Amino acid sequence: MGKYDDLAALLLEAIKEGGYLTKDLSSIPVGISNRHIHLSQADLETLFGAGYQLTKTKDLSQPMQYACKETLIIAGPKGAIEKVRILGPTRSESQIEILQADCFKLGITAPVRLSGDLQGTPGITLIGPKGSILLSKGLVIAQRHIHMTLEDAKNFSVADGEQVTIQIDGLRGGTYSNVVIRANNTSALEFHIDTEEANAMHLADARITIIK
Amino acid sequence: MGKYDDLAALLLEAIKEGGYLTKDLSSIPVGISNRHIHLSQADLETLFGAGYQLTKTKDLSQPMQYACKETLIIAGPKGAIEKVRILGPTRSESQIEILQADCFKLGITAPVRLSGDLQGTPGITLIGPKGSILLSKGLVIAQRHIHMTLEDAKNFSVADGEQVTIQIDGLRGGTYSNVVIRANNTSALEFHIDTEEANAMHLADARITIIK
Repeated sequence: MGKYDDLAALLLEAIKEGGYLTKDLSSIPVGISNRHIHLSQADLETLFGAGYQLTKTKDLSQPMQYACKETLIIAGPKGAIEKVRILGPTRSESQIEILQADCFKLGITAPVRLSGDLQGTPGITLIGPKGSILLSKGLVIAQRHIHMTLEDAKNFSVADGEQVTIQIDGLRGGTYSNVVIRANNTSALEFHIDTEEANAMHLADARITIIK
Repeated sequence: MGKYDDLAALLLEAIKEGGYLTKDLSSIPVGISNRHIHLSQADLETLFGAGYQLTKTKDLSQPMQYACKETLIIAGPKGAIEKVRILGPTRSESQIEILQADCFKLGITAPVRLSGDLQGTPGITLIGPKGSILLSKGLVIAQRHIHMTLEDAKNFSVADGEQVTIQIDGLRGGTYSNVVIRANNTSALEFHIDTEEANAMHLADARITIIK
């Protein structure tokens, strides 16, 4: 059977070179985020005390990112939300990612933004065990995005910064537009949405496909 | 300019007869529902006392439907949710419409169903001021639907029971599939979704179009 094995191996190699087996377009993992907080080291120390370091409880799927033991109260003119989880490590600027529903509770309208795009965003009060801060900016609703490596981007025929449409199957299915590709070599392939977006499309049970 | 005015009037009439101006396909009003309860008169009396009548506080956009002063606690094996609003009038069967997020809080998985389609749905405990009930069925997540008159259905070229796709514009836009047309002559034109579905697509600011 040697020649059939050789033939099979050659065929497989040819198919792989054609890119057909390199990535299943239906198999993008889904990462669902609830409201959460990224802190600068300076803000962390104001809230938790001088020299404070975050306590990792769980690695997240993105490399180097982790959930922390620490939580904060966030507060606006209409109300407060307790036990909002901090994600580590610390960043150059504090950023608070909330749900659309939280805007009503807090009494603050947050814009839909990509992570790090904080110019012109509203601030919010953070309350920790050793202090509180009124941030002058940093409150956002995260824009839907897909993290991937540059190789993934090549396989999906998309580019960093490109906006694509995602299709979700099922009774609660549909499409999400303006999903931003975030491609670099420190990312793991993952479609990021918040809990309201996941629930609206019943995403825990659904399959994800990029359609353009 | 008389002949131009006459011409314009004739053109307008012709366009109207063609149905082009009878309904703006972008102007379907959106009705956003939070979790709520419909009760049978028997269940109402168990929860609030013999002979109890609901107290209307606000008319809803659907004819004869109204929000009530009365609320209940709903409870499952994992947790309870307080102050869930009752909508009137009473119905032949009790029906509890919750959000996907509530399933986690309550510890009960509710199916996505159209109103009234309760066979095989899970039950839930209702707690009122004068008594409580463990319903054997009636817990659902509402399937997205559009109420309309039969004339509206004709204008939109859809039929009662048909499933359509809805397009939503904007940064958080996209499409919702499997939106059921509910056409009869006791309905007002309205696209019904729950708060998670509205927030996920930023529907308060968006325009709605039926695409097939």
